[in-house]
Amino acid sequence: MAIFSNKKNEDIEIGFGKKKYNNSVRFLNPDGSVNINRTGSGGLNNIDIFHWLTTCSLFHLISVIILGYALVNFLFASVYFIIGAENFGGIDGSGAINHFFSLYFFSAQTLTTLGYGHMYPVSHAASTVAAFESLLGLMSFALATGILYGRFSRPKADLLFSNNILISPYGDIKGLMFRLANQKQYELIECETRVIVSYNDPETGKREFDGLPLEVDKINFLALSWTIVHPLNEESPLYGLTLKDYEERDVEVLILFKATNDTFTQTVFSRRSYKASELIENAKFTPIKTEPDEKNRLKIDVTKLHEYSKLS
Amino acid sequence: MAIFSNKKNEDIEIGFGKKKYNNSVRFLNPDGSVNINRTGSGGLNNIDIFHWLTTCSLFHLISVIILGYALVNFLFASVYFIIGAENFGGIDGSGAINHFFSLYFFSAQTLTTLGYGHMYPVSHAASTVAAFESLLGLMSFALATGILYGRFSRPKADLLFSNNILISPYGDIKGLMFRLANQKQYELIECETRVIVSYNDPETGKREFDGLPLEVDKINFLALSWTIVHPLNEESPLYGLTLKDYEERDVEVLILFKATNDTFTQTVFSRRSYKASELIENAKFTPIKTEPDEKNRLKIDVTKLHEYSKLS
Amino acid sequence: MAIFSNKKNEDIEIGFGKKKYNNSVRFLNPDGSVNINRTGSGGLNNIDIFHWLTTCSLFHLISVIILGYALVNFLFASVYFIIGAENFGGIDGSGAINHFFSLYFFSAQTLTTLGYGHMYPVSHAASTVAAFESLLGLMSFALATGILYGRFSRPKADLLFSNNILISPYGDIKGLMFRLANQKQYELIECETRVIVSYNDPETGKREFDGLPLEVDKINFLALSWTIVHPLNEESPLYGLTLKDYEERDVEVLILFKATNDTFTQTVFSRRSYKASELIENAKFTPIKTEPDEKNRLKIDVTKLHEYSKLS
Amino acid sequence: MAIFSNKKNEDIEIGFGKKKYNNSVRFLNPDGSVNINRTGSGGLNNIDIFHWLTTCSLFHLISVIILGYALVNFLFASVYFIIGAENFGGIDGSGAINHFFSLYFFSAQTLTTLGYGHMYPVSHAASTVAAFESLLGLMSFALATGILYGRFSRPKADLLFSNNILISPYGDIKGLMFRLANQKQYELIECETRVIVSYNDPETGKREFDGLPLEVDKINFLALSWTIVHPLNEESPLYGLTLKDYEERDVEVLILFKATNDTFTQTVFSRRSYKASELIENAKFTPIKTEPDEKNRLKIDVTKLHEYSKLS
Repeated sequence: MAIFSNKKNEDIEIGFGKKKYNNSVRFLNPDGSVNINRTGSGGLNNIDIFHWLTTCSLFHLISVIILGYALVNFLFASVYFIIGAENFGGIDGSGAINHFFSLYFFSAQTLTTLGYGHMYPVSHAASTVAAFESLLGLMSFALATGILYGRFSRPKADLLFSNNILISPYGDIKGLMFRLANQKQYELIECETRVIVSYNDPETGKREFDGLPLEVDKINFLALSWTIVHPLNEESPLYGLTLKDYEERDVEVLILFKATNDTFTQTVFSRRSYKASELIENAKFTPIKTEPDEKNRLKIDVTKLHEYSKLS
Repeated sequence: MAIFSNKKNEDIEIGFGKKKYNNSVRFLNPDGSVNINRTGSGGLNNIDIFHWLTTCSLFHLISVIILGYALVNFLFASVYFIIGAENFGGIDGSGAINHFFSLYFFSAQTLTTLGYGHMYPVSHAASTVAAFESLLGLMSFALATGILYGRFSRPKADLLFSNNILISPYGDIKGLMFRLANQKQYELIECETRVIVSYNDPETGKREFDGLPLEVDKINFLALSWTIVHPLNEESPLYGLTLKDYEERDVEVLILFKATNDTFTQTVFSRRSYKASELIENAKFTPIKTEPDEKNRLKIDVTKLHEYSKLS
Repeated sequence: MAIFSNKKNEDIEIGFGKKKYNNSVRFLNPDGSVNINRTGSGGLNNIDIFHWLTTCSLFHLISVIILGYALVNFLFASVYFIIGAENFGGIDGSGAINHFFSLYFFSAQTLTTLGYGHMYPVSHAASTVAAFESLLGLMSFALATGILYGRFSRPKADLLFSNNILISPYGDIKGLMFRLANQKQYELIECETRVIVSYNDPETGKREFDGLPLEVDKINFLALSWTIVHPLNEESPLYGLTLKDYEERDVEVLILFKATNDTFTQTVFSRRSYKASELIENAKFTPIKTEPDEKNRLKIDVTKLHEYSKLS
Repeated sequence: MAIFSNKKNEDIEIGFGKKKYNNSVRFLNPDGSVNINRTGSGGLNNIDIFHWLTTCSLFHLISVIILGYALVNFLFASVYFIIGAENFGGIDGSGAINHFFSLYFFSAQTLTTLGYGHMYPVSHAASTVAAFESLLGLMSFALATGILYGRFSRPKADLLFSNNILISPYGDIKGLMFRLANQKQYELIECETRVIVSYNDPETGKREFDGLPLEVDKINFLALSWTIVHPLNEESPLYGLTLKDYEERDVEVLILFKATNDTFTQTVFSRRSYKASELIENAKFTPIKTEPDEKNRLKIDVTKLHEYSKLS
């Protein structure tokens, strides 16, 4: 896909529109998510629920599963209780509370299709509800299988970006530089990066979006770290700007990264944005050593990615 | 994929052929589905059934599951009944009807692998059928897992198109304009739109299909709303047409949209068509405000997408 | 993907090599499968087994599941029998044969996690084997879920090609024509077709592979039928050939089709080849009527796809 | 995707950087994996665990499942033991050890939702833990389903590369040649190969990466074997080099292969690298015969792929 062309477009159509924005708005959050709050999109549907269950934290997911399990059992226990404890063989204890608890555990044994059988439905009404509950249990479990598979197989590029973006010497001129590396043990191949700068035009007051040409915008393997360089030559919209200019124009540098996960041949995307507060002038990234290890593999410590030194 | 090129082709090959059509035919339904009825394609096969179960309404799916469950249990209960109730230990009640009901619930407990065990098969014949029923239950459940996963993970762009297409002022000339927005909380990235116009050529009487060049046909994020503009300049096949001309030529504007769902990196398609009855002349879309919310996120209310005002 | 370019390459690299072939060899079977028998590729591995189970006929799959179920139960029943029937509570009947049958059904109830419980393991050895068998049952069932999902979700273009390829009048010249249509209720979009001709060069005796330029090689929707035309002009390698020439040169016309299934956004491929015996000279396809049906949908009967008439 | 362009780039950006490397480093292992050891990438997360379980050997996976099963049962048996054996009905034997074993098997019957029921929880505490254990069992099993499906459906090109890379006569000049073939019964279509050479520049001492133009770099079917040829003409960075030069410059020839699995329409990648020790000068691959078999299919024995003969 030739979507990522790094030709300098005077006017890039990124989708945020060319209008007057509040100076403090950030388009991409530091984690790469789009900083948007869409309302009025109608009620939740299945797709939204699946989306949420697939992307929520593990803690949220486990909470939903356990609470859902407890609640469904409570509902069925209530139905069984209304039908009457005398409709169940082998029920433990006596008294309404004991019966309710027994029916609660009977429900759990039915929903999971465990079915010890020391308790069992006797009447047709009880048997019918139990038959329905076990079907519901199987279907819920089928859904859970899909959600867990969706969570694990979801394409994700767990990319590490340097904490800062630097203005560094680059040949005879200066360059805007940041680094990225793959944090995971799988390989990312066919990698492409695109950089877009967004700023308030001091003349029109409107937001501009310009593509920034890069020294290299495509590599075959993200095996080591990748230092991405935009030459700050006369054609750059950032040419000659000082840190103060970056702040005044509310510059946001948007990074779009795209690659293929080699294990599953999935296309993965990653994003990052840098604002003026993350810019360091006149500094240089510390090279990351790649010595062979004892098995003669190239060894790289990705935690060094953020390191830089100020130049005098 | 460079499939969506918006160069104006005199003659676009969209797949509906260039022939005389009944004036009232609509190629795309308003929901984007193709308005075709294909017959003679032979019997149903597995793929059709999976396709239907994956795309049918949730109500239909649940009905099929519950009715199928009731029916399969009825069939197995009948088989057990023919084998004879005396082949089952712990059977409740007496009389044929009570036995049938008991065997029905025994079947449900076997199909779901619940197996309380207060009823159990004694003879070889009964045990064999029960062993087969539990295998069938597991396989049906495996299928249900696949179908539910297929339903939820299916690529879908839940896109909102403006109810109308407008002829609005556009610089010094006029433009054909409509708007679209993403209704969901996931992001759509790498968005492309193609617009094709279909009309009866008054000279030949045949149907023509022309591509319409757009002001912008690709954006990186569908974060806010997107107003798509076809300039009605002299090169446009719609240049100078009035609403009456649109009706006489039975104009249908076909919209093809393509993007990537950022959560699952799935390619999604969406389609819409507008006919003359949905065209508003001399009107303007009301701009949608995008104020930052309390968390400093850009806030957009997508229900405003349809709003426009008539120009005097 | 710009893989399908229909420029006439003097020498297309299709992967069958340019050498002397036995005249009677066919490269693609009529159903589109490649007519190759690869040997010496080492033992079967997991991928092969999954591939076979995903692509074999439904009859084969069901046979494998039922026979595998019967066999695994037989093996576990044998192990339980060796451990001794006295290790199981509630065992039915007496005598070795009755015990073996009881243990066989006990195995089935364990493998499917049905667990009625009227029979149950008593000793540690019996309990351990049963615990292992139920784990094996769950894992086999997990595999079956994957295989069934793989079978149903597999991208497949169930395309109908006309039985014959015709030499028909085409404007002032002749054209090589065949038709194709989608047999299923889902839509195929972004369709591309490539046609390659393979023949024995009478001068060198070697096999040649040439691309054939098409009148239209890309359409947006395969909604109706699609007649694909290669103009038999002077630039065509088939220019002026008679049916006898086609036979002598052992011409094989290879069709490669590629599209996107609109429901699942899957890329699908389809292939077909025509040999001289399927060529009809001086004939014309009967147009397929597409009248609107009662719901005003365009109606097409795809069984008419094969119909043609001889020209005098 | 036009990622694989075989134009000779003076300086290919492969992602390993142009710096001084230890002479003995190999970038790609012979099996195609990238020879990198990334450290410091933070703790394991879900994605890593899923990745490992999907790519580890079958032996490792089975070990993890069985040990995990044994361990979880041990933990739950311990909890049940602490709650007290008197909370369970039908418990076998007497004495702490017998009780622990019984509770262990009870745990297995609960985790797999087998639930024979000759043992069953009586008190609320015991029932609650059992209800939780059966839920955990279902969820673990849902995960296992996803992992097994992920393992089997993972895109994989099981490609066979010739053991050696040869310098062979090629027309009037020499060519660098190797062969590859598909080992499996599914077809690989739309195949592309890219060859990159990496060597120490004797002048700068730095590592260079150059693309090598190929005679043919794209074929439609990998039906037979494919001999890939880089012409060693004056434009080649390897022009005129002897085996001794290859060794001194530590030449590594990197092969990147990309295709589509025709059964699942999955993109698959394969890689290989050759070092000087695998280079044979002045040799020729033995042609692989492709005779039609009894069913008139082209027959090829892929084990012949490695065969070559030295030229005098």
